[in-house]
Amino acid sequence: MKGLLIVISGPSGAGKGTICKALLEENDFWISVSATTRQPRAGEVDGANYYFLTKEEFKKRIDYDDFLEYAEVYGNYYGTPKSNALKAIENGRDVILEIDIQGALKVKESYPEGVFIFILPPSMEELKNRIINRASETPESLMTRFKSAYKEINYVSKYNYAVVNDTVEEAVKKIHSIIVAERCRVDRVKDKILDSKEGIIHEQLYD
Amino acid sequence: MKGLLIVISGPSGAGKGTICKALLEENDFWISVSATTRQPRAGEVDGANYYFLTKEEFKKRIDYDDFLEYAEVYGNYYGTPKSNALKAIENGRDVILEIDIQGALKVKESYPEGVFIFILPPSMEELKNRIINRASETPESLMTRFKSAYKEINYVSKYNYAVVNDTVEEAVKKIHSIIVAERCRVDRVKDKILDSKEGIIHEQLYD
Repeated sequence: MKGLLIVISGPSGAGKGTICKALLEENDFWISVSATTRQPRAGEVDGANYYFLTKEEFKKRIDYDDFLEYAEVYGNYYGTPKSNALKAIENGRDVILEIDIQGALKVKESYPEGVFIFILPPSMEELKNRIINRASETPESLMTRFKSAYKEINYVSKYNYAVVNDTVEEAVKKIHSIIVAERCRVDRVKDKILDSKEGIIHEQLYD
Repeated sequence: MKGLLIVISGPSGAGKGTICKALLEENDFWISVSATTRQPRAGEVDGANYYFLTKEEFKKRIDYDDFLEYAEVYGNYYGTPKSNALKAIENGRDVILEIDIQGALKVKESYPEGVFIFILPPSMEELKNRIINRASETPESLMTRFKSAYKEINYVSKYNYAVVNDTVEEAVKKIHSIIVAERCRVDRVKDKILDSKEGIIHEQLYD
């Protein structure tokens, strides 16, 4: 059976990074590594943190349609390479992609059969605390970020699943259940069932 | 949160009865008990095996639209009572309904938001063995039953999930995962998320 593209997304501060880290520690997932044209920072490893590409290389890949999504941010390109992820999926591996909401919506356009999971903070209060703890910003810019995260929650309706990040352990368990359930979805297994039935029935009735 | 109507269905011989029994032993589900106008057999308890109704009572309930589905078989009525199941669901209980394919398709018409799970035998060979072990029939009638089960498998495409009954334990685990996943489906929780967000955001921004 083909693997699944599992897209872990949600507003900044909901904890998608922590959840993905926990998922990857436990399981044999294939991780999607982003490509970027920005300079590597100290300690960043090519192929692990990012694939570091020149602008020419990046644009060539755009021309080859080799991104599930990409965006230009402050003059640098960022993108999710397509061919390796699709190869892993063809080989039956589940691919985990951690990505912001704008990116996830673009991935959904190019790969609608992905499993789109929206990570929610336990409460808006908790989301605010996380945003405050993460950045040292002015109260005004904090409120801007908080309002932006608040607006982003409306995008939940574009996703397949919503998982509340009460505790990382519980959220990870739910994601595991979602993966098991998705592998049982009739849309995904129907052809296989009907094909294998044909094979077996033919053998039993006519051979 | 509302409960789920979990419809366990599939061809005769796939093992749905065994799976439901295992599910009910483990969990706090609400079981749907069928109604019928046939006579109780020795040892059958009203309200446990069936609700035994007169034809007049049954027809009155049809008029009140109090069946998720019903059918007449050899002059007797059989049906799935609606109001108690829906009350349990409103109270947050998950309701398990074991039913044949024809019945499940009717339930889907009256309650499309149910979770429709198709139980598959591990193989057509195994299905044949189960049918053989269950009944003492002529080879011809066995082949008829087998062909009918074979045709029924095509109805899998009307269901949400397909679970192969390799072992009861594995099948039950998958059904548990399906239930967890369904409780995370955005279609089911979207309104609650957006409502609760409104409440909290209002408090934090404007109070």
